[in-house]
Amino acid sequence: MAGIDDLVQRNRGFAAALPLSVRNLPAPPSKRVAILTCMDARMHPEKFLRLEPGEAHVIRNAGGRASPDVIRSLIISSHLLGTREYMVIHHTDCGMLTHTNDEIRQTLAKNMGVDATGMDFLPFTDLEQSVRDDIRAIRESRFIPTDVTVRGFVYDVTTGRVLPVEDG
Amino acid sequence: MAGIDDLVQRNRGFAAALPLSVRNLPAPPSKRVAILTCMDARMHPEKFLRLEPGEAHVIRNAGGRASPDVIRSLIISSHLLGTREYMVIHHTDCGMLTHTNDEIRQTLAKNMGVDATGMDFLPFTDLEQSVRDDIRAIRESRFIPTDVTVRGFVYDVTTGRVLPVEDG
Repeated sequence: MAGIDDLVQRNRGFAAALPLSVRNLPAPPSKRVAILTCMDARMHPEKFLRLEPGEAHVIRNAGGRASPDVIRSLIISSHLLGTREYMVIHHTDCGMLTHTNDEIRQTLAKNMGVDATGMDFLPFTDLEQSVRDDIRAIRESRFIPTDVTVRGFVYDVTTGRVLPVEDG
Repeated sequence: MAGIDDLVQRNRGFAAALPLSVRNLPAPPSKRVAILTCMDARMHPEKFLRLEPGEAHVIRNAGGRASPDVIRSLIISSHLLGTREYMVIHHTDCGMLTHTNDEIRQTLAKNMGVDATGMDFLPFTDLEQSVRDDIRAIRESRFIPTDVTVRGFVYDVTTGRVLPVEDG
């Protein structure tokens, strides 16, 4: 069975067992928290933070980077839906630690014959520094409320632990 | 307890119970699937698709929109990590259905005195059409492999069901 068909089939079991208590939750996150993390398949933030439905926004992309699209999402999250604490969580063994922009551009040229000159794929070489850089990008945005707290963490994919990154 | 502190505390319980079988999974998603969906706090894609660790990339932002940053993530997902099926999942009662760009800009001006003229927050008025628009944005990107399958769905937050969106 194709991957998507299998997942839709699995959803039927989930929906059949959905508790009444979570069928009419409000949209604003009850813990007023938004989480930014990587799309990595080994990370299930709802599980490793033991989130209940309705508690926190979860924003994910390659690397968990604070791109302009993430700032867009955080503006919606804070100004329209009331979140006030942001977690930036990068992780060990991240693909964005092992590739450079030049390598990714060369892969695109080889695979598809396209020129990705000037595209920034937001790779990084220092895991903790990348977290600090993204905290700063969020804090320095003039669109994010000044009373928001932004804290950084690294998720260790081999232990499942979320460890704080100290301010650099 | 502050929201983040509480979540970090919950993580300790998760990590202590992490099975050995998921401690050394490879980075490429085993189902070769990437999921694009909304950051909404009521949606836990790992649960509503019953994902196992390591099976699928999960990309999330406000609305589940196929922004340039999502294309960046899908380039990494496909070319570097081998995914070949993409699910675009928007949802009922989405905040992006209830606000316009003008309203969001006015909120920013009122809350922070900032001018967000020209910023597009990617709201939409037709839920199924927004899914079709994002499918097309992904399919039409010259950076996404041509053999990738892209399919659209709506998640119903009151029933937990993922329903297909027909091509328009």
